[in-house]
Amino acid sequence: MAPPIITLTTDFGLQDHYTGTMKGVILSRCPGAPIVDITHHIPPFSLYAGAYAISQAAPFFPSGTIHVVVVDPGVGTARKPLLVEFERQFFIAPDNGVLSLRLSHDAAFTAREITNRELWLPNPSNTFHGRDIFAPSAAALANGSASPRDLGPVLDRIECLPDLEPIETEPGIARGKILSIDHFGNVITNFRPPAGAFSLRIGAHHIRDLRQSFGGAPRDLLFAYIGSSGYLEVARNGRSAAQALGVSSGDAVTLHLRDTIGESRKVLS
Amino acid sequence: MAPPIITLTTDFGLQDHYTGTMKGVILSRCPGAPIVDITHHIPPFSLYAGAYAISQAAPFFPSGTIHVVVVDPGVGTARKPLLVEFERQFFIAPDNGVLSLRLSHDAAFTAREITNRELWLPNPSNTFHGRDIFAPSAAALANGSASPRDLGPVLDRIECLPDLEPIETEPGIARGKILSIDHFGNVITNFRPPAGAFSLRIGAHHIRDLRQSFGGAPRDLLFAYIGSSGYLEVARNGRSAAQALGVSSGDAVTLHLRDTIGESRKVLS
Amino acid sequence: MAPPIITLTTDFGLQDHYTGTMKGVILSRCPGAPIVDITHHIPPFSLYAGAYAISQAAPFFPSGTIHVVVVDPGVGTARKPLLVEFERQFFIAPDNGVLSLRLSHDAAFTAREITNRELWLPNPSNTFHGRDIFAPSAAALANGSASPRDLGPVLDRIECLPDLEPIETEPGIARGKILSIDHFGNVITNFRPPAGAFSLRIGAHHIRDLRQSFGGAPRDLLFAYIGSSGYLEVARNGRSAAQALGVSSGDAVTLHLRDTIGESRKVLS
Repeated sequence: MAPPIITLTTDFGLQDHYTGTMKGVILSRCPGAPIVDITHHIPPFSLYAGAYAISQAAPFFPSGTIHVVVVDPGVGTARKPLLVEFERQFFIAPDNGVLSLRLSHDAAFTAREITNRELWLPNPSNTFHGRDIFAPSAAALANGSASPRDLGPVLDRIECLPDLEPIETEPGIARGKILSIDHFGNVITNFRPPAGAFSLRIGAHHIRDLRQSFGGAPRDLLFAYIGSSGYLEVARNGRSAAQALGVSSGDAVTLHLRDTIGESRKVLS
Repeated sequence: MAPPIITLTTDFGLQDHYTGTMKGVILSRCPGAPIVDITHHIPPFSLYAGAYAISQAAPFFPSGTIHVVVVDPGVGTARKPLLVEFERQFFIAPDNGVLSLRLSHDAAFTAREITNRELWLPNPSNTFHGRDIFAPSAAALANGSASPRDLGPVLDRIECLPDLEPIETEPGIARGKILSIDHFGNVITNFRPPAGAFSLRIGAHHIRDLRQSFGGAPRDLLFAYIGSSGYLEVARNGRSAAQALGVSSGDAVTLHLRDTIGESRKVLS
Repeated sequence: MAPPIITLTTDFGLQDHYTGTMKGVILSRCPGAPIVDITHHIPPFSLYAGAYAISQAAPFFPSGTIHVVVVDPGVGTARKPLLVEFERQFFIAPDNGVLSLRLSHDAAFTAREITNRELWLPNPSNTFHGRDIFAPSAAALANGSASPRDLGPVLDRIECLPDLEPIETEPGIARGKILSIDHFGNVITNFRPPAGAFSLRIGAHHIRDLRQSFGGAPRDLLFAYIGSSGYLEVARNGRSAAQALGVSSGDAVTLHLRDTIGESRKVLS
């Protein structure tokens, strides 16, 4: 049987040998494994960006896929290496919250601490667990030599990033944040589209237009749209919205329901 | 039978999950497909750069390869998704001219509008057709479940980028452009090498030297050479020619035949 | 039998079609070959950075792997294309020293000049031997149609980069250099960790702390650690050490043994 897909999401960048070396470890122990890079350009140590990337990509991979996520400011310290089974996929990552946007609060998942040193590289370093612990553990799972329980014992709880979801601050108003700014300067919020009219406030900007696509929009217009992420996003046509707004990942966004007189609508769905 | 190669050429960059997600869609529907990145660093919305990259790479891939090219400023508007069969390869792209440098004017190709929604992801977004339309259409072709005609009806004509080819402006003089500036700062023009002596004029610079390779050239010399692209290119030894010239992609270049007294030579071959 | 892994290490960057085109050549001639990118972001023409990257990655790949390393300022000149067999792996590269950090001085390796033009692309260019010579030679080896001796004759000697190893300048003091600065700003020296206490001097900075990992270190502290590279590295917790030190690859580092009174220790192991 062909080995499952192994995906890699890291903040390692692509200038060094690090991602290539991880692939060497995987392919040495699981020949023929299809390896897919999600991205290696997570900003260094940015757990939110890592959480966002893997939460977006994972649902489009088949059952059995093993996602290795290494954004790991605590490498070499007491933070645990983690194996999570969720919706028939596997996630291998440090226990620092980087998986928490993917694992919805009420969903059933099984988490294990990766403790089985026999599956690791001998003499693991303190600074490159991607190579020495995460990659060989993924390969052991992929080549069928180890089952999830062989990797380590079940954990009762895992770390969760705070403030992932928007909060209703008063009726019809909710405070959220910018999850990501993409390569095109599109601004991805953590708001799901509400029913009915609304506006977004980002800094001094009020965004009231909701459009279907980029093409045809006036070049200077900042508009909202329902992104491919499923979240509300803000764009300009052919230009960076983030630059016009002067914002970064993590910045605050407020959603205001409009024309709510006599209506009762939920600001958060 | 092993699935054919699927290549990806986009302006998505590598910082986001976008290219990884497309690969998840492809591998979910066509397990084992070998996926090759041509580049994801086409400058945002730059149809000429996309056209140049795929025109250079495609001829080096085997018959049956499916090239997915997503440089798509008009995503979500009326522009058509396209399937083109050309020289025993397939090209999937928006109908905006991004394929036109690969499809020579007199060559026979068959173009189809991709209309078969059954092959797409359900509920396609308006902003990520790479994931929702192009990737699954490529996978359907690759896994053998769909033939080209299953994707959609034949088109009479497709979009073509203007000014791809140089124009003879007076005898012995032609006006062309810079197709690309590569990572090393080499300047790739759209001139095929003419027979006999010539000079290139780029801004205030006259380039008269034609060399075989970079090594051995004086460090400050700007020289022309017949590039691996088949076009005339301009370089410096170990340094960026583009920086010395102060030019960008799309800028004008003029080619002048030299020593033409008593001769009759063609400036454009 | 499945073809061996082919890895690619270049200074081509990822913005152009170059690496994708090399993969097209390889897969045209060796269908199904697993191709792994080590990195394509070696700084242009930087032989030391290329030598460092491949020396770090290669040991983690299986026997039979073919490593193609194209950092090649002399492309198209008299420098030889090279095939080296070392520790049951193959290395294909220009003969300019880029392999010399991998090939330890006393180890047995066999080097050949790649001269068999029948295995190359027809009419090779003078500027893209990665596509025209190195990739097809690797593919011929990978698909089993050629043995190493079919590629060309054995060479007596190959080029070696100078100053790869530190030098003891006086008792207890050695002069080395910075091999690489990674994506996180960690500074990788060419010193193996000595026994006992030591300090590193880089410019005006004296680094005396030796730590096990990044986490827990005060944010401004510059400290040394035994890197995943096996070399002494210098870091700060969550920030760039290179920026604090104001250093670049190739800069000098001095190692001083400490508390050596009455002891006799070797500064270089």
